[in-house]
Amino acid sequence: MEINGVEVEDTFAEGFPIKVARVLITAVTERWALVAAREATGFGTSVIGCPAEAGIECVVGRDETPDGRPGVYIQICNMNYKNLENSLLYRIGQCVLTAPTTAVFNGLPEAEKQFDTGKKLKFFGDGFQQERMYCDRGVCVIPVMSGDFVVEEHIGAVDGIAGGNFYIMGQNQASALMAAEAAVGAIDRIRGVITPFPGGVVASGSKVGSRYKFLMASTNERFCPTLRGEGICTLPEDINASYEVVINGMDREAIEEAIRVGIKAACTVPGVVKISAGNFEGKLGPHHFHLREILG
Amino acid sequence: MEINGVEVEDTFAEGFPIKVARVLITAVTERWALVAAREATGFGTSVIGCPAEAGIECVVGRDETPDGRPGVYIQICNMNYKNLENSLLYRIGQCVLTAPTTAVFNGLPEAEKQFDTGKKLKFFGDGFQQERMYCDRGVCVIPVMSGDFVVEEHIGAVDGIAGGNFYIMGQNQASALMAAEAAVGAIDRIRGVITPFPGGVVASGSKVGSRYKFLMASTNERFCPTLRGEGICTLPEDINASYEVVINGMDREAIEEAIRVGIKAACTVPGVVKISAGNFEGKLGPHHFHLREILG
Amino acid sequence: MEINGVEVEDTFAEGFPIKVARVLITAVTERWALVAAREATGFGTSVIGCPAEAGIECVVGRDETPDGRPGVYIQICNMNYKNLENSLLYRIGQCVLTAPTTAVFNGLPEAEKQFDTGKKLKFFGDGFQQERMYCDRGVCVIPVMSGDFVVEEHIGAVDGIAGGNFYIMGQNQASALMAAEAAVGAIDRIRGVITPFPGGVVASGSKVGSRYKFLMASTNERFCPTLRGEGICTLPEDINASYEVVINGMDREAIEEAIRVGIKAACTVPGVVKISAGNFEGKLGPHHFHLREILG
Amino acid sequence: MEINGVEVEDTFAEGFPIKVARVLITAVTERWALVAAREATGFGTSVIGCPAEAGIECVVGRDETPDGRPGVYIQICNMNYKNLENSLLYRIGQCVLTAPTTAVFNGLPEAEKQFDTGKKLKFFGDGFQQERMYCDRGVCVIPVMSGDFVVEEHIGAVDGIAGGNFYIMGQNQASALMAAEAAVGAIDRIRGVITPFPGGVVASGSKVGSRYKFLMASTNERFCPTLRGEGICTLPEDINASYEVVINGMDREAIEEAIRVGIKAACTVPGVVKISAGNFEGKLGPHHFHLREILG
Repeated sequence: MEINGVEVEDTFAEGFPIKVARVLITAVTERWALVAAREATGFGTSVIGCPAEAGIECVVGRDETPDGRPGVYIQICNMNYKNLENSLLYRIGQCVLTAPTTAVFNGLPEAEKQFDTGKKLKFFGDGFQQERMYCDRGVCVIPVMSGDFVVEEHIGAVDGIAGGNFYIMGQNQASALMAAEAAVGAIDRIRGVITPFPGGVVASGSKVGSRYKFLMASTNERFCPTLRGEGICTLPEDINASYEVVINGMDREAIEEAIRVGIKAACTVPGVVKISAGNFEGKLGPHHFHLREILG
Repeated sequence: MEINGVEVEDTFAEGFPIKVARVLITAVTERWALVAAREATGFGTSVIGCPAEAGIECVVGRDETPDGRPGVYIQICNMNYKNLENSLLYRIGQCVLTAPTTAVFNGLPEAEKQFDTGKKLKFFGDGFQQERMYCDRGVCVIPVMSGDFVVEEHIGAVDGIAGGNFYIMGQNQASALMAAEAAVGAIDRIRGVITPFPGGVVASGSKVGSRYKFLMASTNERFCPTLRGEGICTLPEDINASYEVVINGMDREAIEEAIRVGIKAACTVPGVVKISAGNFEGKLGPHHFHLREILG
Repeated sequence: MEINGVEVEDTFAEGFPIKVARVLITAVTERWALVAAREATGFGTSVIGCPAEAGIECVVGRDETPDGRPGVYIQICNMNYKNLENSLLYRIGQCVLTAPTTAVFNGLPEAEKQFDTGKKLKFFGDGFQQERMYCDRGVCVIPVMSGDFVVEEHIGAVDGIAGGNFYIMGQNQASALMAAEAAVGAIDRIRGVITPFPGGVVASGSKVGSRYKFLMASTNERFCPTLRGEGICTLPEDINASYEVVINGMDREAIEEAIRVGIKAACTVPGVVKISAGNFEGKLGPHHFHLREILG
Repeated sequence: MEINGVEVEDTFAEGFPIKVARVLITAVTERWALVAAREATGFGTSVIGCPAEAGIECVVGRDETPDGRPGVYIQICNMNYKNLENSLLYRIGQCVLTAPTTAVFNGLPEAEKQFDTGKKLKFFGDGFQQERMYCDRGVCVIPVMSGDFVVEEHIGAVDGIAGGNFYIMGQNQASALMAAEAAVGAIDRIRGVITPFPGGVVASGSKVGSRYKFLMASTNERFCPTLRGEGICTLPEDINASYEVVINGMDREAIEEAIRVGIKAACTVPGVVKISAGNFEGKLGPHHFHLREILG
């Protein structure tokens, strides 16, 4: 299978279950909503070493937010609900409550699982907080030095999927990276997904396990072009750099759509040689995304 | 004391000791160095609820980096060296090693305290890593899918100061916030300091302690304009919003300079009424920054 | 009439007829499409002193462009079709043909008026150009040093409207400007319109004519707060700065929608006192936009 | 001669004399100064088809501006002083006077040639303008709706050089473009120069003249990779895309420094094959920049 002359390998991406909370941050301008969203989702690439996986899902206009201000949906992901509750408390409390002009709304009001994050954060008001209805949502209002901070009482979460992915293999670093940037730009327009790594891109795709017992993941040497001379890397001669795009999302359909538009975007960039995906022969998780089926 | 007609209150900011590591991230372009730096310093506003305090110190040109590529200095701060070592390992390992085209160098090679962060991260190479001299630095080279990742063996740290601050009190939210943005922009040009909050600004300045035993910090009600009607807020009528700029740094001089240029910048913005600072009557820390002395 | 406590004056904005061409620029990433679009629409605020009025209408995804790459629609406006044809030739030829990875498509393929801009630009190919069908469009392909530049043969234009506007009057510069930024952000999401001034905002709203014969427009002294002491400015005491948002567009409906969402967005910002609009008692043009009717 | 394994051809760039005016724009924040600077320098790539060549030289801190606010230096270039005077009047009058919170200062107060741009723009004040000293500069103060607009009476200009350049030839578009971005980023740090094309990069390097009498410049077919099959393009097989960086500046030294740092930066990017430069055998201009001398 080829797209614009780029070979798509007959393989699959292997994802795993994760819990996903979704938060809507509004602010006086889109710029300030993004400032808060970036701080709240930082240090959030992989649960292997970060306290959560997190990212910006999308920016929405005033017609899609309860308070008629610009908004940014973020997703925060943890392996279990207990850690996720902590992530919400600390990331919202430290990075959004403190950010200029922001308010926080429930990004999944219909979900079965609901955390009472706002009801816990309200104690920052030290007795001066209030609970009330605002824009048809039950909110807590916390007086702060710059005015009032509004946070919805509950934040919803669902069983989602982490680790959807594909590899972009290029003639050189620049072509693979430009293609990755194009892919992430296309995925940014898909609702329901995030690309939690820096700029949406992974420069150091890994395999499960390592020769060191203390390491759960290590470099995937078969794909490392600088190990070609030693016969460890088995890449063809025309591939000199690969980037991985990793996708988390609220459901399988959104991740499939993200893989589809991401790969198509990558294949518009000259110098891309091949598309592949990362799997661990089923050792990592039950969610398999077969590239050719998704693109077919 | 007045600057451009803005009153500077005769008070002081109260800072506290913290351990500060400094990391230099380089990349193929300034844009990609910043992508890595933002991810690595996110979720890093306050050690009350974040795993570290972190921020971008400055961008540097090719003539100031070992590998002749554009660079970004970041600072990562924790209350003790044990936590700081973990912060370095996880923030660099998860957010910079994974970022496209980056390399990591020691931002404080002369410091007495040195962590062997690079020597620990190298095991990600799963046996294919190498130690060697590169650009006059002892580095570890880890083969990854996009090429080689270079990380210096050691990262230095010093006894620094957190919590330097000042308050910008305005006629309304917009004037106080525009002044805060101006102040943070001025501070961005000072070496040795970071402003760890979102966009460098705190919307919810706090006091130490609260009526709830489980809360170490809570809203500073005396400065909350929406509590004015109830007599709790004692602000004059012409102040309707305040923002705080919080500054961490490697030494007292850098923080003093940041306070000086920050306040001067804030006072160029129409609608700013007063400058003050946050202190806790000496309960929080030994580092006192008297505004009028610094500005005098 | 009030919105969020902000008075909307019972007045109207006065627009005038203009010719509007619409161009779709695509590129390898949204970022590069925007680089070209900004260069091509610069020095384009008002036909009083610029060779055209021009601006970015919107960014579109890959599903809305002929070549499946990210796109930016720009509008270029002149008082007559002869000048507009020149604007298209020079702005596309100098600012988009020269920009990395771009292609140019007709943004109004259904319009009656069509310029053969691509057919003229093709001569840059010095005999090596080709005409062919590409993505269902008739295009010219010009070989350049970085590959091939594709430009559609024709670019369409329509009779549009310039000078739609409203004034945002604030307690101080910062509140009026933050509100203007919020308004422009809301208008950015409306198809069919541009806000041609810097950042979408006019700091120096004008009246028609002046005491000097050589000047067609001059400062609108009645609205100049620094002339208040002299009795020339008749603004109430609580208004200390006004910004104007000027809107051009392809038809009346789009401009009305832009005025509506823009004013609503401005009225979410604390410190905004009043909304008004600029008209010249019918001397300037036949298109009158009555604010209260539009908002009603 | 090689840099990082990239061949630097033994050739020269050919520049030509141009008149360069330099303007300092200040604003409440760096962001707003840049908004004005971008509008004022847009549609300004080449005097072949633009009313001027223009670009942003550098951003400066508050310690380098007369009014203690952040500043941006721009350069505007025309073939003679008459056109340059018009460019200044219209670009400042339409794009900076209209921009929020800006002021304009003379960027070359020591130059022999001085335009009385401010003294002409002041008439926009319709009789309410004032001339006075401000920050040690003779300025005109024009009351506008958002406050007062300050413009220095004179703007200086010098005999400068246009058309300094080098070519970056890459394995594919992505590597050549990433290298061009790296080069432009390095040049951004050099005082005295601008890179007037979109993003600093030219995708369509030209030769002087063409087979069509009405065209002064046309595609440089020998460097067009898509003409390789026809024997017209004589590039080696491993070069598939070239980008040109064009540099204007106030003097020869600044342009030499820009070429030096730009080429060095380009040569840090994998996939760059060769560096060359554009000349026209002396037909275009007297300023020759020999690459190997400059780099030696």
